[in-house]
Amino acid sequence: MDNADSVNVRVFSLNCWGIRYLSKHCPQRYAMIGEMLSKEEHDIVLLQEVWSEKDYLCLKKKLACTHPHSHYFKSGVIGSGLAIFTKYRIHDTFVYRYSLNGYPYMAHHGDWFGGKAVGMAVLNVGGLTANVYVTHLHAEYCREKDSYLPHRVVQAWELQQFIRHTSAGADVVILGGDLNMHPQDLGNRLLRSYTGLQDSYLETAKFDGCEDGMTLIADNPFITEKELGPFDKGIRIDYILFKSSSKADIHCDSMSTTKGSVPDHPFPYSDHEALTAELRLESCSPAETGADRPLKTQDSTAGRLAELVDIVTEARTEVKVGLHCAERMRYTAARTAVMGLALLFLELAIAAVPWLALGAEQPFPRTSFYLLAVLCFAILLTTSLLYIFYTMELKSLQGAEDQMRLAVSSLQEKLRGFPLAQPHNPPRRPPEGQEPGAFHPEE
Amino acid sequence: MDNADSVNVRVFSLNCWGIRYLSKHCPQRYAMIGEMLSKEEHDIVLLQEVWSEKDYLCLKKKLACTHPHSHYFKSGVIGSGLAIFTKYRIHDTFVYRYSLNGYPYMAHHGDWFGGKAVGMAVLNVGGLTANVYVTHLHAEYCREKDSYLPHRVVQAWELQQFIRHTSAGADVVILGGDLNMHPQDLGNRLLRSYTGLQDSYLETAKFDGCEDGMTLIADNPFITEKELGPFDKGIRIDYILFKSSSKADIHCDSMSTTKGSVPDHPFPYSDHEALTAELRLESCSPAETGADRPLKTQDSTAGRLAELVDIVTEARTEVKVGLHCAERMRYTAARTAVMGLALLFLELAIAAVPWLALGAEQPFPRTSFYLLAVLCFAILLTTSLLYIFYTMELKSLQGAEDQMRLAVSSLQEKLRGFPLAQPHNPPRRPPEGQEPGAFHPEE
Repeated sequence: MDNADSVNVRVFSLNCWGIRYLSKHCPQRYAMIGEMLSKEEHDIVLLQEVWSEKDYLCLKKKLACTHPHSHYFKSGVIGSGLAIFTKYRIHDTFVYRYSLNGYPYMAHHGDWFGGKAVGMAVLNVGGLTANVYVTHLHAEYCREKDSYLPHRVVQAWELQQFIRHTSAGADVVILGGDLNMHPQDLGNRLLRSYTGLQDSYLETAKFDGCEDGMTLIADNPFITEKELGPFDKGIRIDYILFKSSSKADIHCDSMSTTKGSVPDHPFPYSDHEALTAELRLESCSPAETGADRPLKTQDSTAGRLAELVDIVTEARTEVKVGLHCAERMRYTAARTAVMGLALLFLELAIAAVPWLALGAEQPFPRTSFYLLAVLCFAILLTTSLLYIFYTMELKSLQGAEDQMRLAVSSLQEKLRGFPLAQPHNPPRRPPEGQEPGAFHPEE
Repeated sequence: MDNADSVNVRVFSLNCWGIRYLSKHCPQRYAMIGEMLSKEEHDIVLLQEVWSEKDYLCLKKKLACTHPHSHYFKSGVIGSGLAIFTKYRIHDTFVYRYSLNGYPYMAHHGDWFGGKAVGMAVLNVGGLTANVYVTHLHAEYCREKDSYLPHRVVQAWELQQFIRHTSAGADVVILGGDLNMHPQDLGNRLLRSYTGLQDSYLETAKFDGCEDGMTLIADNPFITEKELGPFDKGIRIDYILFKSSSKADIHCDSMSTTKGSVPDHPFPYSDHEALTAELRLESCSPAETGADRPLKTQDSTAGRLAELVDIVTEARTEVKVGLHCAERMRYTAARTAVMGLALLFLELAIAAVPWLALGAEQPFPRTSFYLLAVLCFAILLTTSLLYIFYTMELKSLQGAEDQMRLAVSSLQEKLRGFPLAQPHNPPRRPPEGQEPGAFHPEE
């Protein structure tokens, strides 16, 4: 690219599958990852599932020369697992913890303990302000009966909100991570449509990697058939997304993924494939922004608004399903608690009779008495905790649903401002009553 | 104001003290608040401690004509207690839940259950995009020995991050709420210095209200002497803050507070005083922004950067104190858990001896055996939960400390770019390596 005003940025993203003592060959794989990163010298490295801070610090030490700037996003009990390594100075960071992230009692799934979040780092890339986001959404354990779907949809909703609201001042937006969603999944459509983020895989000029850009593939020895389900070749759930602004155009010149094996090594870097996107950032002069760049017609804007209304409505339906489920679970918890309490009172009553009738023999065998009491207390405690937890889940789901309802009505209001019959001259300034800070289909 | 391009906005903020069945005269006070709001017709009403959604819905019904647009921010177990009522259409909302917010076992303080947060609503005010924030930080129960100080400092840190990062696209920023901090408290200085928010009380041309703008006063019948401690007249902990942008200048024409009583009513609206600020928004033309508006000199910018470095360093120290405390608490939890486990094993060992030596008499009285076992289990469960909780607290504190360290080094880097000896001509574009999206002392 002979344009003097363009910067090439190589972005890398990998879910490291770094559960100490549990993930297979974890230390060896981290050594391989560190070696590769220091050799490849990507400009921005976005890692997920770096569950141990020790492993992050090890990588930081190894990459001190090639990637002097880094940040580890802390959250939850274990951590968010998110890390960024970069050549560019990090000026600011911010982290948003998703309000919903699975259930603590589903310890074998472990998502809740990870405290899933989206991390943001503000970098200066060739004079442009780049907001770089890294995230990891709740895993999908069973596609047919996905009880975590409402949680993932709310995470996608919060992710788009976070990116949209924090990136207004950015010239460049880059998001990398494991979204745990197929390309056409609801959350993915919601994220892309609302933020205007573009998918590197779909936009790239050149591609070298797995078929259909898949990042969870059957050829990876760490992947079992069960994990892929009906998608026997693999699925695409890791992404590098980007968004241009009025100050900078972004193009994806090439993209690549690893292919389930690493030359000269007995196993791959992770159970996920790694992504690399070569992005070209071109600064736009203010004049260019106004005059030379093609403007979208009102028709296409209205079309996109209408599409967005449909997607948000679909998301709202999914959240409502989650609401019903959470309400049912909370009701069950409350009912069980009442039963536990009733049992306890019954036991006490039976035991109290001989005490009251002084001298009568205690009919209740002591062992059973205490065991039953313990059981009652355990039930009461567990159900109380569950009740509190489900109440919090309900609040978050209701909150998301409220916001979605408001968003739909705001989008419909905007749609009414776009009569399809009018000539194709979009107004330079949004009409009064229309929100200029939110969704900009023109961008 | 005869400027055609100016809009007057009346902003109202009140902590409603709305704990159903616990706060004194709660239904009567809500009735008074609703009546007053529908009569006064403020443009933007920001309420805190509306703990019950039913009360919010009641107000919503009452204010349907005067304030057709409203939003209740949901969070935590009970809710965030935050609500906004406005004449302007709400185009978008977003909520950020603070990562730290007291302890669940301090149930009598109740903050943890409230899920303290900051709510944001995007409004269109006379063609300007206004980001309106409402928040409520953790209460201060004992100023001399304030164990929640690190939590409140981290909340202030996250609040400034949230406002700074989400308001880049806004023309007007307004924040109202109960910050639970005195005007010169660390968190308050951190918030104001980093975001550039101005205090209505300090900026207002006219003021009518309590001495020193106090919002928690001795004259309020709901306030006990104990609550005010050494500040026998009262304290100022509720604020309306605002910030101009390159597109709009904001002036506070007048401000008022209630004075501990309401005419024709036996008691005041709440235990806090209500604030009203009359803000005048003046749109700036682009030309004005560049040429006519006075630019701060390099010296004052460098001075403000240096001040900010000091404040963030002070906040970091406070967070470190919190870190030590949380580490100690986690250690205690772990040690108690180990002791509980040891006791359980000891008990089982003593009980097992006669079982192994078949026929020997059981020396352990059954009642004591079961009671002790229950005690051990209770200790184990409680300490495990506490251990998990303190780990999460530690992660959040460490995360905030990391971000503060990075912020300090980034600010110092900027400071180095301001040699005090140079002539007072600030560069129009920040030099390479300097972050344009973050703190703008010029704004």
